[in-house]
Amino acid sequence: MKIYIALVHYPVLNRKGETITSAVTNLDIHDIARVAATYDLEAYFIVTPLMEQQELVRELTGHWIDGGSPNSDRKTALSMVRITPSIDETCKQIEAETGSCPLVIATTARHRNKTVGWTELRTKVEAAQELNEHASMLLLFGTASGLAEPVFEQVSGVLEPIEPQRLYNHLSVRSAVAITLDRLLGNCR
Amino acid sequence: MKIYIALVHYPVLNRKGETITSAVTNLDIHDIARVAATYDLEAYFIVTPLMEQQELVRELTGHWIDGGSPNSDRKTALSMVRITPSIDETCKQIEAETGSCPLVIATTARHRNKTVGWTELRTKVEAAQELNEHASMLLLFGTASGLAEPVFEQVSGVLEPIEPQRLYNHLSVRSAVAITLDRLLGNCR
Repeated sequence: MKIYIALVHYPVLNRKGETITSAVTNLDIHDIARVAATYDLEAYFIVTPLMEQQELVRELTGHWIDGGSPNSDRKTALSMVRITPSIDETCKQIEAETGSCPLVIATTARHRNKTVGWTELRTKVEAAQELNEHASMLLLFGTASGLAEPVFEQVSGVLEPIEPQRLYNHLSVRSAVAITLDRLLGNCR
Repeated sequence: MKIYIALVHYPVLNRKGETITSAVTNLDIHDIARVAATYDLEAYFIVTPLMEQQELVRELTGHWIDGGSPNSDRKTALSMVRITPSIDETCKQIEAETGSCPLVIATTARHRNKTVGWTELRTKVEAAQELNEHASMLLLFGTASGLAEPVFEQVSGVLEPIEPQRLYNHLSVRSAVAITLDRLLGNCR
């Protein structure tokens, strides 16, 4: 199974619950690209409709990919980054590559109905790996205060929050991506 | 069992393998404090012998703790940060608090002899929780290119690398801390 992740900058919520387009950050690009490379994903999509933000991502990654940097590890990681204007366009790219629509799974820090459990999703991924299926999965992560409501209505499933029973529930999206990929794809099970 | 983590800025290695003191970064403080709060640790130590760097950490955390910031979640997380000049001094603080020396476990991205396995350490932590022991554990994470050799000679154990069989092996320390705490303390098992 081919696994993709997308870091979504629109549509996401701000702290007041309003729908915004968040700004891309250099560290989100680097940290998450390194996690994506570690767990051997197909690609890491940065989703933003803003042209100048897309250009910024190209500049920030280009420095490492084409700039003759001696840090080839970073180059490997940043080469996984792709830029798309929307979640829909991301799915289309994956479909063009794999021949079928990906299973799209949203992530959230809040309790929601109809969530997919960790074990259930991991089992599904493992089953698809064994069958060597051409299936693909796209995991969506929201920046700012998380994905906006309409996203949840379009996806195939919503993954259970990371530690829902804990008092403190405010991981950075970078930490959430690392933990999620380790839980679904890590070898320490 | 009381669990502590330390982000070590000295002694660590640079890319050439030389021992250096690395600089503290704002994002290491924030991201790791939020992970520490999520997994309900006792404290998160920032270890640096440099007085001006210690002062910088105080400024960066003080803004959120005392500055009247409306973000109380961030305040909760950053209140876990403590500053110590060395690993030894960190152990002494824990001993003063708990009555005994902590079990000190180093982390590494490279294969080493005598590593403690993930399941072994998790089982040990769970057993200590159940017995309600006054035991404590300090997990050490190296910044830059990782902890310097003398650290490994002083610790009680070295934790197995995160995904040692993978081709790409260059997670950020922020991602490594998130994955490590989830593997040892997370409820998704």
